[in-house]
Amino acid sequence: MTLPVFDAAAIERAAGPQLVLETVRDALIAHAEGRTHVPPPLHLDFREADGDCHVKAGWISGAADFTVKIATGFYGNPALDLPANHGLVCVVSARTGQPRALLDDGGLLTAWRTAAAGALLTHAMARPAAGTLAVFGTGEQARLQALWLAELRPVGAVLVHGRSPDRARALCDVLGAHGLAARPAAAEEAAEADMIITATPARSPVLDAARVRAGAHVTGIGTDMPHKNELPPALFHRARTVATDDHDQCLDHGDFGHAVRAGAVAEDGDIAAGLLLKAPVDRPDTAITVADLTGVGALDAALASAVLGRLTG
Amino acid sequence: MTLPVFDAAAIERAAGPQLVLETVRDALIAHAEGRTHVPPPLHLDFREADGDCHVKAGWISGAADFTVKIATGFYGNPALDLPANHGLVCVVSARTGQPRALLDDGGLLTAWRTAAAGALLTHAMARPAAGTLAVFGTGEQARLQALWLAELRPVGAVLVHGRSPDRARALCDVLGAHGLAARPAAAEEAAEADMIITATPARSPVLDAARVRAGAHVTGIGTDMPHKNELPPALFHRARTVATDDHDQCLDHGDFGHAVRAGAVAEDGDIAAGLLLKAPVDRPDTAITVADLTGVGALDAALASAVLGRLTG
Repeated sequence: MTLPVFDAAAIERAAGPQLVLETVRDALIAHAEGRTHVPPPLHLDFREADGDCHVKAGWISGAADFTVKIATGFYGNPALDLPANHGLVCVVSARTGQPRALLDDGGLLTAWRTAAAGALLTHAMARPAAGTLAVFGTGEQARLQALWLAELRPVGAVLVHGRSPDRARALCDVLGAHGLAARPAAAEEAAEADMIITATPARSPVLDAARVRAGAHVTGIGTDMPHKNELPPALFHRARTVATDDHDQCLDHGDFGHAVRAGAVAEDGDIAAGLLLKAPVDRPDTAITVADLTGVGALDAALASAVLGRLTG
Repeated sequence: MTLPVFDAAAIERAAGPQLVLETVRDALIAHAEGRTHVPPPLHLDFREADGDCHVKAGWISGAADFTVKIATGFYGNPALDLPANHGLVCVVSARTGQPRALLDDGGLLTAWRTAAAGALLTHAMARPAAGTLAVFGTGEQARLQALWLAELRPVGAVLVHGRSPDRARALCDVLGAHGLAARPAAAEEAAEADMIITATPARSPVLDAARVRAGAHVTGIGTDMPHKNELPPALFHRARTVATDDHDQCLDHGDFGHAVRAGAVAEDGDIAAGLLLKAPVDRPDTAITVADLTGVGALDAALASAVLGRLTG
């Protein structure tokens, strides 16, 4: 039998936010409980083409499948009218080692699990009565974070802050078409929202910790490399609860690590994000809470397997 | 565009020994000259299913493609009437990072590049007048090694030595159908052939070094893990020239490593196999020569790319 290949369009027809949110929730809990297996990634550099390739594998103990994800970034591609990033997920049986399918998803599943993790943690950690949402960033993640949070709880006004006013307005139009009351906002105003999600490639903090109000929750999802930094150390210093999706990763290349190295929070001052998804979070109405998410590879395995179940089920 | 997937049957229709031999020759030379990139492999264990997964990547400097090979071994599969091993090769552009195709080859390309490396080195290192060939082992590699060597030079009598007389006879029938004069032989007789290729999973040496004649050449391809051993240290002690396809690998888990640890040969007593493929090997008619081949990952990249060229060309 020829190995089936499913592209992004097929995946979008088969699966949506509800499946992704449920799957990512379970996978984050499994990760927090030490039931995931994520070996060190394999890496190749292509200096002349300004490109690289990362291969990551992941498995959740007992799951029927594991995945191998091949992701490339070739940074001269846009000049050739090609996307810089490409990806491919191979789903393999963890019972027999047989390849089951390929998801030629163009990075869709990675975007989905990132969006789901952010929305899940924002919902779990924010005050039940929190209303306004601020989104820093105007890209695919900014859009998905707002839309998927709205799958989990009512969202009031959405304030969109971006470096490009045009892109901020465009995102507000998209969110508006989905029924959200969105408008562009300055960073100062956005920092005063009840819920804040940062989804930018910033190399220095995008919001002023002093402006964040008592009772607010902040989720940072953009910082995934040591030279990036979205959330200021002072925010971690003010926070009552800090969640990390993976302690070692966030310490190494997340905003949490910047805060630890700045002395704003203790190295053991975080809690595993997955644990906060198991039961209602105990948080006073005046507390500030922060989630730092760097992306957990085992989520790819869980999500690819769940999506494949829909595609072939 | 959907990613094309080619299975073993399609690959066998598109390519054959000549393409493989040429491609592997060039790749072995590139490896000897330090023009290959093979990052440490990624590894996952599945203890309950008695399985494992290795992911290997390879690239030859300047080549248009690189490959990521996913190989699994699940050792309970035969009881389920499934093969123990599965494999999949993803060919990716080294210029743009775009996946180009998947070769769902069931391990065919690995078998081919192993066969080609063995045949190439046996041909390059054996005396021009060498006639008789002995093959230790009766599996796929034993068959391919004999047939592909016959693509490179005339082969006289072929002596097949195996633990199972039935399997040895069956292999002789197959080789006979391809025009080779093959017959089963005892280990003692096989050890006296002009050319000897060992392709077994042996854990202790399969031939007696004292029986190997002056002027003989021996290629070992079965030893690919530290607990395996086909060629006796005494053979390396007698050899004038020892070739290794990868010095570090052969020292770590090849027959060369066993010989070095036994004090039979110096740790720097080998030459890179690829260098012997560039020009006629200078060897007296009375010298014994040995090639220890453990398998070079960059060959996968070169071969997959060449085969894909035929499949899509």
